[in-house]
Amino acid sequence: MTQRVPLEKMLQEFERVLMRVGFSQERASLCAHVFAENSLVGVASHGLNRFPEFVERVKGGSIAADAELERVAAHGALEQWDGHTGPGPVNAVRCTERAMELAQEHGLGCVALRNTTHWMRAGAYGWRAAEAGFGFMCWTNTVPNMPPWGAREVRLGNNPLVIAVPREGGPVVLDMAMSQFSYGKLETYRRQQETLPFFGGFDVEGQLSKDPTAILETERVLPVGYWKGAGLAMLLDMFAAVLSGGQASYQIGQREEEMDISQVFIAFDVSKTLGAGAVARVVEAIIRDIHSAAFDAGHEEVLYPGERALRTRKENLEKGIPVEPSIWEKVLNT
Amino acid sequence: MTQRVPLEKMLQEFERVLMRVGFSQERASLCAHVFAENSLVGVASHGLNRFPEFVERVKGGSIAADAELERVAAHGALEQWDGHTGPGPVNAVRCTERAMELAQEHGLGCVALRNTTHWMRAGAYGWRAAEAGFGFMCWTNTVPNMPPWGAREVRLGNNPLVIAVPREGGPVVLDMAMSQFSYGKLETYRRQQETLPFFGGFDVEGQLSKDPTAILETERVLPVGYWKGAGLAMLLDMFAAVLSGGQASYQIGQREEEMDISQVFIAFDVSKTLGAGAVARVVEAIIRDIHSAAFDAGHEEVLYPGERALRTRKENLEKGIPVEPSIWEKVLNT
Repeated sequence: MTQRVPLEKMLQEFERVLMRVGFSQERASLCAHVFAENSLVGVASHGLNRFPEFVERVKGGSIAADAELERVAAHGALEQWDGHTGPGPVNAVRCTERAMELAQEHGLGCVALRNTTHWMRAGAYGWRAAEAGFGFMCWTNTVPNMPPWGAREVRLGNNPLVIAVPREGGPVVLDMAMSQFSYGKLETYRRQQETLPFFGGFDVEGQLSKDPTAILETERVLPVGYWKGAGLAMLLDMFAAVLSGGQASYQIGQREEEMDISQVFIAFDVSKTLGAGAVARVVEAIIRDIHSAAFDAGHEEVLYPGERALRTRKENLEKGIPVEPSIWEKVLNT
Repeated sequence: MTQRVPLEKMLQEFERVLMRVGFSQERASLCAHVFAENSLVGVASHGLNRFPEFVERVKGGSIAADAELERVAAHGALEQWDGHTGPGPVNAVRCTERAMELAQEHGLGCVALRNTTHWMRAGAYGWRAAEAGFGFMCWTNTVPNMPPWGAREVRLGNNPLVIAVPREGGPVVLDMAMSQFSYGKLETYRRQQETLPFFGGFDVEGQLSKDPTAILETERVLPVGYWKGAGLAMLLDMFAAVLSGGQASYQIGQREEEMDISQVFIAFDVSKTLGAGAVARVVEAIIRDIHSAAFDAGHEEVLYPGERALRTRKENLEKGIPVEPSIWEKVLNT
């Protein structure tokens, strides 16, 4: 039987551990919420399962527990902030909130953040902004982990992009890395000795492959839509570096571990463009139309981005969050 | 031998024809520039080859030659405009310029446009803004022409997205529709009796297919990255409708022809975030890194988005723009 832990309990434990490694109460609470929420919606790889490694990095000093965000420049609706290698989730939540403040004042607002660390699940920030009633986009660059189109060598980050809009009952949140499958997903398929449902990268001969082992060997994962996703990843990196004044992927790749990454947060005050009630109606009508499509053999429904996460969230709020016992034990004993 | 026409001559002829169907001199010049530039960079499908149909639609009244853009609401850095079914290229250029003005004032600026018509090549506006020194994003919704993931029926537009940054000598411009191949490209492969290099859609059995004829029969083109591109297309449509207050794809699909579409233009004043010289250096360094990647068998170089268009542009400026003689003749005789 799956071991499940109530959300409140997970929050408490995460907060306790974070305070033990130097977080203030407020920052511990904020960071704990991001990690717990990620497990709550079914993304344990960026929730509980990543938490011990995160704590180790805080202990090791490559994530600065008490580093405060600093605003380095303000240009009206566009601001540049420095994360000073602080905890990625704390920095990202604060920048999301600042982008929303700017949007309330200017219609839209953009915060470009440099020198931050891994924000865990990108969608967490889209979820947060959309639940507060904003249209929202954010993205991050990463260490190089994907080849440009036509290249044998890795040069691009998979640079997750989030786009979110509010919806009654739970927002619509696209959370999309630019690789067809994440390295985590490839590992899972390999562990279960399964082949991928679609091409996920290249083998040593440079042939497209569905074999997770072959792809993990070459580290040549496939960009979403071949040349298209490769191009999108490149532009997101350029934009993040140019707006934030921070590091591009190739520079992050020169570090010993992934740090000093660059991120962009853009909030849109859609209560101004349509009014909150009208936004809900417009989004609902689009979803109704999508849901009305006849589905194909092998599919039982047509979903919008974030729909499955919302279901998982409801189930786990009710029954508790499924945990890997050994990892949960480790947290309890920290 | 390919027939070629100098840019100046093409501009003159387009302008003459447009004035004949009711465009003012200024608007004719602006619109002619977009069409000619599209052919100049090698995208004749949205340049010369589309021009006769565009003129027919103007004559038929479904594109209003003299409709003026109207600002319907201003929220600081975010504005909503109504295109009143005017010529898409004219409306889009004006909104691009307005977004840049807003960015100069507020750091970034967003124009959301409703009730416009086809803007032809999306990349034209990214090119224009980036050449003026701005970081830029824009996208449009379209008539439904792509199935959501898992659906047999078309519900999503392919909703082209543009992201552009300035670069010395010619900008970096990603111009990416959310279908793996455009309908135009599928037609070309069919005409040449070739199969696609990668899956491009589904056949009648619901199987992934490289056969352009089979895909054109079902009209089930493949979203970029399967579920990912389908999700991105959905969110771009929601955002366009919510920001502009205009029509979503499903509503556009209820019209007799594609009209009253919604578009978003966002400009970033990157001379504020980095300074113009520094932007050029950052972009150049990223490109140098990309270009340094060893390339794969079957590839002779690794390109950035817009690199090929830039080459074609230089060649055609020098030698003249290649034209399909029958279509060029038609323009001359209009």
